[in-house]
Amino acid sequence: MYCVFCQIIAGHLGAEIVLNEAHFMAFLDARPVFKGHVLLVPKAHVETLPDLPGELRDGFVDAAQRLSTAMVAGLGAEGSFVAINNTVSQSVPHLHQHVVPRTRGDGLRGFFWPRTKYDIGEAVGYADKLRSVLA
Amino acid sequence: MYCVFCQIIAGHLGAEIVLNEAHFMAFLDARPVFKGHVLLVPKAHVETLPDLPGELRDGFVDAAQRLSTAMVAGLGAEGSFVAINNTVSQSVPHLHQHVVPRTRGDGLRGFFWPRTKYDIGEAVGYADKLRSVLA
Repeated sequence: MYCVFCQIIAGHLGAEIVLNEAHFMAFLDARPVFKGHVLLVPKAHVETLPDLPGELRDGFVDAAQRLSTAMVAGLGAEGSFVAINNTVSQSVPHLHQHVVPRTRGDGLRGFFWPRTKYDIGEAVGYADKLRSVLA
Repeated sequence: MYCVFCQIIAGHLGAEIVLNEAHFMAFLDARPVFKGHVLLVPKAHVETLPDLPGELRDGFVDAAQRLSTAMVAGLGAEGSFVAINNTVSQSVPHLHQHVVPRTRGDGLRGFFWPRTKYDIGEAVGYADKLRSVLA
């Protein structure tokens, strides 16, 4: 199956690569939320976060930490936004973590807006459903 | 310093806890983007993702993987959104990873909108700045 990220990893498609290590690569998103927005991908083709093999978990966070720091140290951002879409809103079915530079007043304050609220007694039902599969 | 998440972890503030393990806790966000939205936190008070100690990286992803799966298995979601705000838009200065259930057509398609684009020759400058601090 054709995967645009596997093509970048294989060197068959161009990208501005900022990190290239044994198991991970990070490159600029061609259509950034803010300039400097990168995508961190495992070189192995896995589709979503739950599919990431256990032996890659530590390195995945280590790279995300360094990229988050680089947004501040390299681009002068005040912070970063780090996000994964699993399945829904996932444009490429190859796990990718967005690392986006953030600055106060950049207009993304509404990222988690709008919020909703639970009716009285409703939250426990949601928690119970989650607890039942997490136990 | 008073930290609302440390108070929840200590049992001094109530929350609907869905995961409670040696180093991590996850509980419902009281003002969810979608019902079932949880916050995964390390029990140790660290402020941002780059501050997470190396020995907690593997467990942090392991818990996020299980929570992502639980959104589908427990709540019938089609996918999930997993995100961290570092510093900017970070309402509580204790590292927390949002895990939000997602369903197609739920109205969050615009999460990464609007996008911008690089002028010709501009992307390499951003990549160079990131490469210079990542090397």
